[in-house]
Amino acid sequence: MKLPNYVSGRWSLGQGAGELLFDPVTGDELVSISSQGIDLEAALQFARARGGPALRELSYTQRADLLEKIAEALAANREEYFRLSLLNLGATQADASFDVDGAIYTMKYYAKIGRALAEGKMLKEGALVPLSKSNTFAGQHFLMPTKGAAVFINAFNFPAWGFCEKAAPALLAGVPIVVKPASPTAWLTHRMVEDIVKADILPPGAISIICDSARDLLEHAREEDIVSFTGSGDTAARIRSHANILGRSVRVNIEADSINSAILGPDSSPGTDLFDLLAKEVVREMTLKAGQKCTTIRRVLVPRQWLKAFGDAVSARLSSMKVGNPRNPEVKVGPVVNKAQQSSCLEGLAKLREESEVLFGGNKNFQPIDADLEKSSFVEPTLLSSKNGLRAKYVHDIEVFGPVATLVAYDSREDLIAVTRRGLGSLVASVFSNDLDFTRDTVPGIGDLHGRVLVVDSNVAGQHTGHGNVVPSCLHGGPGRAGGGEELAGLRALLLYHRRFVVQGPVNGIAELSKSCVDTALLYS
Amino acid sequence: MKLPNYVSGRWSLGQGAGELLFDPVTGDELVSISSQGIDLEAALQFARARGGPALRELSYTQRADLLEKIAEALAANREEYFRLSLLNLGATQADASFDVDGAIYTMKYYAKIGRALAEGKMLKEGALVPLSKSNTFAGQHFLMPTKGAAVFINAFNFPAWGFCEKAAPALLAGVPIVVKPASPTAWLTHRMVEDIVKADILPPGAISIICDSARDLLEHAREEDIVSFTGSGDTAARIRSHANILGRSVRVNIEADSINSAILGPDSSPGTDLFDLLAKEVVREMTLKAGQKCTTIRRVLVPRQWLKAFGDAVSARLSSMKVGNPRNPEVKVGPVVNKAQQSSCLEGLAKLREESEVLFGGNKNFQPIDADLEKSSFVEPTLLSSKNGLRAKYVHDIEVFGPVATLVAYDSREDLIAVTRRGLGSLVASVFSNDLDFTRDTVPGIGDLHGRVLVVDSNVAGQHTGHGNVVPSCLHGGPGRAGGGEELAGLRALLLYHRRFVVQGPVNGIAELSKSCVDTALLYS
Repeated sequence: MKLPNYVSGRWSLGQGAGELLFDPVTGDELVSISSQGIDLEAALQFARARGGPALRELSYTQRADLLEKIAEALAANREEYFRLSLLNLGATQADASFDVDGAIYTMKYYAKIGRALAEGKMLKEGALVPLSKSNTFAGQHFLMPTKGAAVFINAFNFPAWGFCEKAAPALLAGVPIVVKPASPTAWLTHRMVEDIVKADILPPGAISIICDSARDLLEHAREEDIVSFTGSGDTAARIRSHANILGRSVRVNIEADSINSAILGPDSSPGTDLFDLLAKEVVREMTLKAGQKCTTIRRVLVPRQWLKAFGDAVSARLSSMKVGNPRNPEVKVGPVVNKAQQSSCLEGLAKLREESEVLFGGNKNFQPIDADLEKSSFVEPTLLSSKNGLRAKYVHDIEVFGPVATLVAYDSREDLIAVTRRGLGSLVASVFSNDLDFTRDTVPGIGDLHGRVLVVDSNVAGQHTGHGNVVPSCLHGGPGRAGGGEELAGLRALLLYHRRFVVQGPVNGIAELSKSCVDTALLYS
Repeated sequence: MKLPNYVSGRWSLGQGAGELLFDPVTGDELVSISSQGIDLEAALQFARARGGPALRELSYTQRADLLEKIAEALAANREEYFRLSLLNLGATQADASFDVDGAIYTMKYYAKIGRALAEGKMLKEGALVPLSKSNTFAGQHFLMPTKGAAVFINAFNFPAWGFCEKAAPALLAGVPIVVKPASPTAWLTHRMVEDIVKADILPPGAISIICDSARDLLEHAREEDIVSFTGSGDTAARIRSHANILGRSVRVNIEADSINSAILGPDSSPGTDLFDLLAKEVVREMTLKAGQKCTTIRRVLVPRQWLKAFGDAVSARLSSMKVGNPRNPEVKVGPVVNKAQQSSCLEGLAKLREESEVLFGGNKNFQPIDADLEKSSFVEPTLLSSKNGLRAKYVHDIEVFGPVATLVAYDSREDLIAVTRRGLGSLVASVFSNDLDFTRDTVPGIGDLHGRVLVVDSNVAGQHTGHGNVVPSCLHGGPGRAGGGEELAGLRALLLYHRRFVVQGPVNGIAELSKSCVDTALLYS
C-alpha cells in the first residue's frame, strides 16, 4: 500500500515506488510513501490562501473548539494508533501510550486553555505607550497571527505527540499547518491526519501532510511562514542555512540534539530514598521508547565516591528489564526504530567506550526475546561510567539515541556545574537532592543553558512528573546544541505563530483596533 | 592617527596600516583603524569571564545607575560627537543631532525605565504552574541574563545611536558588550567608548570595542552569546549561515534591508492638511541624513488620480533643500557616507529608472555647494514615480540607501495592501488618513509584515513622532527582508539578553529561587 499525501485540499498519490516503511522487530515491509511529483509550492499557497483566512475568521475560542473535536477524533482511533505504533516502531504498550496518549492529552490541553482567549482574534500587549503630551497620540503593541503557513518537519521518535504538540498551538493561533513527518515512522502521523480529515473538522487548507522527502518545500517558504523542525543538529543547520530561508528571514524554530543530565546531589548517599529514586528514573529513561526521547537522560552526574554504588544500583534494575519483541507480554524494552538507527547507536557506543567503562550491557550480538538478530533493530541497554569528568569528550558531545546512559563522576559543586554546562545547551537537567542550599546554587548555575530543570526532593518524590516527560504547561526546548527553539509552555506557544508590531497613532484609532484583542498577559497566566 | 581597540580590559593597537576613514565632503583622510593581530577569542572570553559576573552581581537598578552615568559621560562630550559626525559623516547639525542626541536620549530612557525592575537580579514569568494534585510540586518559568557576551556588529549610518540602542538594554540585562562598529564611520563610536572607559563607570570586561574587520570573531561565539547585527541582508545571511553560529545555535538578532512605505489615504486629496503633511514628511525623510536611515520612506503609495499632484508638491519642497558641504549654513542636505555608498546609490537609481519616471533630481553630475564633485560623495535628492504598482520590480526590491524615494500609484484598498506587502517585510509603514474605516482595514492588512505602523490623522498632525523616528518605548525591527529581529520596545528589549527556562520542583525551592526575581509583566507595562 502506498500512502497518499494530503495537499491543496485533496489526497494525491506520489509517483514512483517511493520509500518503504518497516517493522523494526520482524523486518517486514509495511507501507510505502512518496512525495514525488507533488506540487509543494501550490500546497503551501493553498494553505496560506485558503486555510489561513478561514482559520483567522474564527476567534481563539472557536479554534479551541476545533482542537477539542480533533482530540475526540483521535481518541476514537486510539487503538489503531497503538497497533501502528507496534508495527512501525516496535512500541510496547507503555511506549505507544507515551506517544499517543501524550498527543491526545496535549490536544485536549490546548483546547481547554485556548478558551481563556475567548472571542479575541488578535493579541494586545501591554499598556498604551505615551508619545505626546496631550495623550491623543500614543503607541500600542499588538501580536497578530501570521498570514503564512506553519511547516512542521518532525522527528521519527514521536509520530503522534510530535505532530500534536506543534499542531495544537498553530491551529489555535489561526495558522494552517503543513506536516512532513519523518519518513521511517510516517504511517502513524499519516493515519492521524487521515482521521482528522475524515471527521471534516477543519476548513480546506488548514491541514496538509507530505510523506517521504520534503523535496523543494523550503524553496517555497515565504516571509509569512514558520518552519518548525525537530531532529538532528546537522539537518537543522541545513534548514537554517538554506538560501531561501536566509534570504527571506523565514522564522525557524529548532529542537535538535541534547545531552541531558541528571544530577545526584551530594546529600543523596546510597541508602537514601533519592539515591534509589534516581536509579529507578535512569532505568525508566533508558528503557522507555528504548531511550529514543529527545529528553532522555544521557549523562548521570554522580559524586565520585558513589560512582560504583550507583552503577550497581542501576545495573541491578536493568537486569530485570527484558528486551525483545513487544508482542511477548514479558518484554519491557523494544527495538530502536530501524537498522540505520541501530548502526548509529552502535557507532556512538563504540566512541563512548573509548573513554568510558561499560558497567552493563554493550553486547552487539545480544539475543532479543522472540526476534531475529539479523532482521530486527535492537540495541542492548547499556550503562557506562566515566571517571574523567570535564576531560572526557564523547560523553559530552555524542547523543547516542537509544537505551544508553553514562555515569560521570564529579568532585565539587563548581566541577558539577562545569560538567553539566559542558553539554553545551540541553533540553533538561534534573537535580535529586534534599539540600536546599545545593539546589539554590546549582539551578541558577545551569538554568540559562537549559530549557527545563527538574528538582526532586523527598517531599515530591511520589508526585514529580519525571525527567523525560514533557508537559504542555511547561517550556520544552533548549539553547545551543538543543537548537534554541521554544515549544509548549502553555499559551506562550502561540508567540511563535504571531507577529509583534506596534501601532503609533491617534488613541481613538488604537481603541478601534483593540476591540477584537485579548491581552498577552493571558499567555503567561 | 590609528585608533586602538579596547579588549580584555586594555587599549591595544592593531598591526599594519589598517583601514583609512575619510571625510565624505572633502575626501580628506581622517584616522585609521586596525584589528589585525588582536586576540578576539581572548577578548570574548574576558568579557564572559570578567564582565558578565561583575555586571550580574548588580541588581537591575544598580545597572540602571550605570546607564545614567554613561548618559552623563556622553552628554558631557556631545559637542565633540557633533564635530566627528561632521568630519566622518558629513552630517548637518540636524543629522548629527538625530544620531547623537538620539543616542543619549535612549541611554537615559533605559536608565529611567530600568529602575522599575528594582533590586531584582532575575525575572520570573507568570504564575506557578500546577503539576501535582497536592500543589507541593509545581512549575515556574524564569528568565535569567545569559552568561555570554553580546556582540554588536553595527551599521555605518548610526555610529552613536546604533551603539547606544543596543548597549543600553544589554548592560541593563547584565550582559557585557563587544562592539564592532562599521568601519567607514567607526570613529564616533570609538570616541564614545573611549569616554565611557575614561569615566571608569563599568567593571572590567563589561565593554569592548573592535574597529576594522571582525576577522575571526564569529568563530569564537558560543552558546551563551548573542550576535546582534544591523546592516545589509547579504552580510546578515553570511552571519546566520556561519558554521560556528549554526553549530552552536548562537542567538542572532538581525535588522537588515527595508523598503518602507508611506501611504496617502484615499480621503487625503490635494488641498487637505494630510496631503501637505505627507509631502513634507517625504521630503524630511529623503533629506535627513541624506536618506541614510533604515526607516526612511522608500515608497510613497498614492491614489492614482493624485500621483501627479503629489509629485509636484514633493518636488516643489525638494527644490528649496540646498545640498552640499554642511559647513555652509545654507546647506540642508549632506553627502552619503563615502564613494562606495555613492556608487551603490547610483547603481540602484539606474535600476529604478528602468521602470520609473524621474520627477525631480537624478543628475549624476549635479554640483553640490562648496564641495568638489570628484572628492565628495553626494547624491542628488531624487524623486521617481511608478505607475506600474505590483508589476514593477525594482521599486519593491531595491533599497537605494540615499536621498531617493519613489511614488507608486495604487487603485484600490486591496491593491494598496498587496503593493505594501510586496516590500516582503519592512520596519515601518505609515498611513496618512482621516478615514477610520480605511485605517481599520489597512493596519491589520499590513501589520504582520511590519514592525511598526504609524497612523496620522488631522488630530495628531501636530504631535506625531514621525515616520522615520525610532523611539525607545516602541518596537524597532521587522520580519522578512527587514531581518526578523526585534529591538527596543521599552523593557521588552531585555528579552533578547535573557534565557527562559522552567523549574519544576518543590514549591518551597521555587519560592527560594524567586526571591531575587521581578515579574516579567513589568517588561510590558
